[in-house]
Amino acid sequence: MNGIGSAAVIGLGLIGGSVARELTARGVRVLGYDRDEDTLREAAEEGGIQGTLPSGLSGVAGVDLVVLAVPVTAAPRVLERLAAHAGEAPVTDVGSTKASVARAALALRLGERFVGSHPLAGDHRAGWGASRLGLFEGARVFLTPTPASTRPALERVQELWRELGAHTEVVDAEVHDRRLAAISHLPQALSTALAATLASGGWGRGALGPGGRDATRLAGSSPEMWTSIAMDNAPYLSAAVAEVEARLAALRTALDQGDEGELRRFFETGSRWFHGG
Amino acid sequence: MNGIGSAAVIGLGLIGGSVARELTARGVRVLGYDRDEDTLREAAEEGGIQGTLPSGLSGVAGVDLVVLAVPVTAAPRVLERLAAHAGEAPVTDVGSTKASVARAALALRLGERFVGSHPLAGDHRAGWGASRLGLFEGARVFLTPTPASTRPALERVQELWRELGAHTEVVDAEVHDRRLAAISHLPQALSTALAATLASGGWGRGALGPGGRDATRLAGSSPEMWTSIAMDNAPYLSAAVAEVEARLAALRTALDQGDEGELRRFFETGSRWFHGG
Repeated sequence: MNGIGSAAVIGLGLIGGSVARELTARGVRVLGYDRDEDTLREAAEEGGIQGTLPSGLSGVAGVDLVVLAVPVTAAPRVLERLAAHAGEAPVTDVGSTKASVARAALALRLGERFVGSHPLAGDHRAGWGASRLGLFEGARVFLTPTPASTRPALERVQELWRELGAHTEVVDAEVHDRRLAAISHLPQALSTALAATLASGGWGRGALGPGGRDATRLAGSSPEMWTSIAMDNAPYLSAAVAEVEARLAALRTALDQGDEGELRRFFETGSRWFHGG
Repeated sequence: MNGIGSAAVIGLGLIGGSVARELTARGVRVLGYDRDEDTLREAAEEGGIQGTLPSGLSGVAGVDLVVLAVPVTAAPRVLERLAAHAGEAPVTDVGSTKASVARAALALRLGERFVGSHPLAGDHRAGWGASRLGLFEGARVFLTPTPASTRPALERVQELWRELGAHTEVVDAEVHDRRLAAISHLPQALSTALAATLASGGWGRGALGPGGRDATRLAGSSPEMWTSIAMDNAPYLSAAVAEVEARLAALRTALDQGDEGELRRFFETGSRWFHGG
């Protein structure tokens, strides 16, 4: 790949593993690290990476790009280890929230080299075993430079994702996090709350119709990943949840009072939104 | 059809229209009624019904089965008109809630002839134009006899749905309504509340990922139908909504306090339910 002859990928789960496989397939020399030794050995044996990094991450100095693919709440600790090693390579991550990792990069004086990434890709499976070629084909990737990010750093990260078939969109990290709280984290939280309510009532997923199954599909996502996202984006997600609570309270009042007009407005609002009106 | 040579279908929307088409295709003489004159004319012209009933519904006396396919809150008024005409034919309906229509039938001294039906079939489209053959193939249909329903009435209604390819399950009307509040009406309410929240934030459906689109699919359903269902099943739905509100309030507390253990338990509960654990 033009400009990227070697790369370090830290964290070889679904996203990191897929990035490693894609780079390897393009002749890039990929050095990998994962805190799980079995994963690291497996990735090396399968040829998904060409070398391994020690847990201190020494050895990243010479690469052309560093990709951090660990849970968002773990990212600052890993950035700290990265910062201890000299090197000028741009650093990106793949987390679902972007403001906290940007703050950590700035605090560690990595702000110029750091450009956050959030690829909208993935599925209900996780880990190296689920990683694969083609995961980013046609996907959208939000890029969140820090106020200090250099243009060459941004361009290298853009090149990475475009080469992997994705479309990039540059956005402010705080704007990104507020947006994702609404369009991604809130649907996840509601799907999980619905699933928990059904579970406590003794209803299995098989009792649902097609619509109910759709509404609860997100509940199957990785609890580890979502705990990390919720912790990291707590203020925006909390505000979004509060808004839904207010709507549900109003709905309940309308139900309790038999307020047909209010119920009709409620369902019409959702229908109009769905049908794009 | 064995035992059903003629039938009256009151309401020629998606469900009633599809029942009329199925019966006609089996050689049953179907008399139809719809308050919308264009619908009634169209159904007759297309041969979906073989005759029309006046709005007073005189003329139903001679049929072997009456199918009521109007919104659940309109059903009692129509039952009243039906009751004015002598006749011994079993009467069923197709509404999504079952207790109120059973009470109305009992109050009108139709309890022996009445057996409620709730076919779990339909889609985002509505009206005669959306009705079609095959809609009930493989569908589940809940049957809710009143305490007074006769065995011949139950058997005729069972025959109807089995002939149309559906599986029937007899259940108490109140048990049905409490169950449906959880497994159907609550997912609908949450999908609509999520859609309304996204609408107020200025987010269109195109901004969502696949999971968010799944979670909001139900919001596109018919507001008229859902207003009617919500009005009719208000107490059970209100209780179910209150339970979700309590879960969201607990989630928000965990977010505000950065309670990682509580957040993990929340997402794990949903994931365990989804994966059937």
